[in-house]
Parts: sequence; C-alpha cells; structure tokens
Amino acid sequence: MKSHDDEFAERAVVIHGVGLIGGSIALAVRACDPKCRIIGVGRNEQRLAAAHRAGLLDETATSAVPGTVPPNSFGIVCLPVDQIPDAAGQLLRAGCSVVTDAGSVKTTVCHAMRDSGAGRFVGSHPIAGSEHSGFEHADGGMFQKRMCVVTPLDSEPTAVARVEAMWRRLGMNVVRMSPEEHDRVLALTSHLPHILASVTAGCVPEDLLPFTGTGYRDTTRIAAGSSVVWASILLDNALHCIAAMDQAESRLRSFREALASRDAAALEQLWDAAAGLRRKL
Amino acid sequence: MKSHDDEFAERAVVIHGVGLIGGSIALAVRACDPKCRIIGVGRNEQRLAAAHRAGLLDETATSAVPGTVPPNSFGIVCLPVDQIPDAAGQLLRAGCSVVTDAGSVKTTVCHAMRDSGAGRFVGSHPIAGSEHSGFEHADGGMFQKRMCVVTPLDSEPTAVARVEAMWRRLGMNVVRMSPEEHDRVLALTSHLPHILASVTAGCVPEDLLPFTGTGYRDTTRIAAGSSVVWASILLDNALHCIAAMDQAESRLRSFREALASRDAAALEQLWDAAAGLRRKL
Repeated sequence: MKSHDDEFAERAVVIHGVGLIGGSIALAVRACDPKCRIIGVGRNEQRLAAAHRAGLLDETATSAVPGTVPPNSFGIVCLPVDQIPDAAGQLLRAGCSVVTDAGSVKTTVCHAMRDSGAGRFVGSHPIAGSEHSGFEHADGGMFQKRMCVVTPLDSEPTAVARVEAMWRRLGMNVVRMSPEEHDRVLALTSHLPHILASVTAGCVPEDLLPFTGTGYRDTTRIAAGSSVVWASILLDNALHCIAAMDQAESRLRSFREALASRDAAALEQLWDAAAGLRRKL
Repeated sequence: MKSHDDEFAERAVVIHGVGLIGGSIALAVRACDPKCRIIGVGRNEQRLAAAHRAGLLDETATSAVPGTVPPNSFGIVCLPVDQIPDAAGQLLRAGCSVVTDAGSVKTTVCHAMRDSGAGRFVGSHPIAGSEHSGFEHADGGMFQKRMCVVTPLDSEPTAVARVEAMWRRLGMNVVRMSPEEHDRVLALTSHLPHILASVTAGCVPEDLLPFTGTGYRDTTRIAAGSSVVWASILLDNALHCIAAMDQAESRLRSFREALASRDAAALEQLWDAAAGLRRKL
C-alpha cells in the first residue's frame, strides 16, 4: 500500500545555497524522482558550476528572479540563519509557490516571514548534518530516519502540507512545534553541546594534544565546525542558549562541590543520572 | 635493524584485573610473544575462568600470593585507581620483580608506593581505552601508536627500563613525566572532557532525546561510562580537575558575555581559537 506521503508531487525544487545540506537535499530529491528539476541558486558561480558538473543540479542561477523559477516550484533556503529571511523572500517573489528552510534556529526567521505576510513560507529544521561543509560532502541518505521539526507560524495549511510531505519523502520523521519551542529544545540538544565541545577543545593547549585520547577526540569533533555558521546560530538563539548554559553551570557546580568535599556518593549519583539518560539514546 | 625495544624480554606477565584494559594487554602480549606466560588475577573466579576459556590467560588465581607467580614476573595492575596501591603491593610480595599499573591518575598511587619503599613499582598510564568495560571488548591493537605516560618516583632504573620496554613492545610511544605533571595534563586532556560530556548529557531530559543529532551523540558517548570508575578517577585527581573546571568556567563566561552583548566578532574569535586547536589534532 502506497501512502500519500510516498508520492513525490514536486516537479521543480529550487535550492538556495548548495553546500552540505543543500547538496544533500539535491541528492535525496534526485534519488526520489529523477524527473524532478533541481535548480541551484548561489552567489558563487564557480561553486554552482562545480555542483552542476557533479550531477547535483539541472540548472543554476546566481540569483532567484522571476523567469529563473518554473511555475509552482518548491523553494528551500539552505543558508546561514541570518541570511534566510532575505533569501526566502526572493524565492517567493521569483515565483516559488511554497518556501521552506533548513536553519537551526526558527524564532527570528519565522517571525520575520510572518511579519512580511509570507503565508507560503514554512520554517523547517531537518536535524541532520556533520561538521563538514561544502557539497562535496553531500550525502543523499543523510535525512533517512532523522527528525525534522516543522514550525509553521500563520502559514497556509496547503503550504505546511507540501513542506511536511517533502521531508517525509526524503525519509524524515516530521514533528510540528512552535518556533519558540523548537529553539528552547535545540538550545539543549544541539547548541549547548556545541558550546561545551568548544569549551573542552579550548582548554587543551596545542602541546598537550598528544596526551588526548578518543574521549577528547569524540567530544570535540563538532568544535571544529565553521565559526561563521555557529556564531550565527548561537547569536540567533542567544536567550535560549544562555538559559541552557545556566543549567550546565549548575551541573558543573554540583561536580565541583562533590569533588571539593570528596563526596564519592554524590559524584556517582551525578554521573549515573547523566549516564542513564545517555544510555537511553 | 632490530632495536633493543623490539625484544620481548618478559617470560611471565601477571595481570591483576582482567577487564577491558587488562584483557587488551593480555591479547597484545600474546601477539608479541605466544610463549610468554600470562597469569590473570582477580576476585571473580567465574569471570577469570571465562577469560581463560576465551584464550586470554594461561593461568588464573583469585589472589596474588607467593607460589602463584613465576620468578622474575612482570606485574601489571589494571584496577580502579583506589585499588591500585594494595594490589601492586600484593604483586611485589608475591614475587613479581617489577610492577606497573594502567591507572588514569598517578600522584596518589606513586606516592603511596614510594612511601612504602617499593622501588620496583613504576607508575604508568597507557592512554587508550573506550567507554566499554569487560574483557569481552578487549582489543590487542588498542595500544598501537598511542601515548603511554610513565611516572617513576624514586623507582629503580632497571625497573623503569623494563616497564618502558614493555609499553614500547606493545606499540606505544612512551613519555616520562612526574606524577603531578601527568595529573595536571590529564585533568585537561581527559578528565575535564569527561565532566563536560556528563554535564552535556545531564542537560537533555529523556523526552528531548529524539531531537538530538550526531553532535550530541558524539559529545556524550564517554558520559555513558562506569560511574564507579569515573568517580574514582575524578576524586583521586580532584584538585587538578577543579583547576581544569576553573578554565572551562572562564571560557563559558566568555561565551555568555559574547552572547549577552550580541558580539559576533567575539563569539567567532572564541569559537575559532578552539576550532583551530581541534583541527591540529
């Protein structure tokens, strides 16, 4: 039995920003339906041409203007969060009949789009990726069985349905949240881990790196990501990140107190509470 | 050309504590020299028998007493740090002519052994392992090209030479440090990453786990380790861990200030400093 979600209804997808995520979406769409036209938009003509040569795109354009976009296209913005509202507005004006994004923070973007009356914009956050960047690392299987949070804010119901159907077709489990709820949750599940990974990495000077083990290597992998991308995400979600850091600092204080008072039972309890959560993953 | 370090001079190795590390040492010794006798010592007779059946050990004993240990044996204690001095003393009294350990903290152990006049004890920390425990996860290749810190404290030079030759023979790069220097370094390179991984894991309640990505998964892997092992390590190195936490808290404050004042340049600088270090790994 084929459910409605299995149908790939889109005839043309416009991807603004063909990096790791945009490139992976291109590959995943291609795998779903080789007949769907994939149009890549980006400022860097050489990078776009390279993605075209690599087979990710059918067409390229350095900006989304009326005429470059086929009628009824599905637009996706895969740019750093601070560039999303402008790019999403461009895609709508160029003729996309629905536009979503893949940004890691949702409140600012969704409110900006709502305030501009863009009912055909629907915010999304596909929770997938890696510390790499660039379409060369694109992976069409990246979204399979991963979670996608969709955050409509006064969006048209048909637009929401199309966006959710797209992510489901790429293999994702879709959950709906308000933009604010998304940002509060992701501050704990993603932004705080990035901040603490960066803190961990920042505390080991270069001459001590030979004395790190697999623990340091794994806990700091994500600290090697792009500072432009991560500063943009953390700043856009500053209030929730600060609240998440309050929680982290409170746990750090508990560790410090248990260590200072040589309280083995308290230390084991603190460790076990976190270990128990982690083992549930 | 065969260097002196390539010779496997030991005829019998006594491993007290046949878990992940002890079991991996057994496999690595076996691979170096199938004729070397490997004797496993441990309190749990069934576990020892299982390790014997798995081919890791030639002989087993529930305690190290004179008679169970062949003359001129090489002893290695692979137990939680708080149990090392007692077990190392037992191995020496049972007839081992040199004893080392694999503990993650060195000051307490080395001072206890020095104070008891055990010049044939030489502290070691092979920086290798995983979040797993038990000899079932043992891996004879675990030590290849990894760092081993050796921390002699009034130890006999011939004992130091034998211990260093053993680790080199198992494929490790050996570096000598004072016990205190080791503990200061490892607080930053290993113990702090474990504390921060536990803090990260502790901040995500169970119902939000579906919204974690690969970042959370990797940064918290080591938080799932044994609370008994880690409470023992952190308590034994409490002062250096607290100093390392001071550094972490200072970096956290910088993140907080940059976020609170919406200072993108400061945030990128903070991120880049840590990312630059991590990329040197």
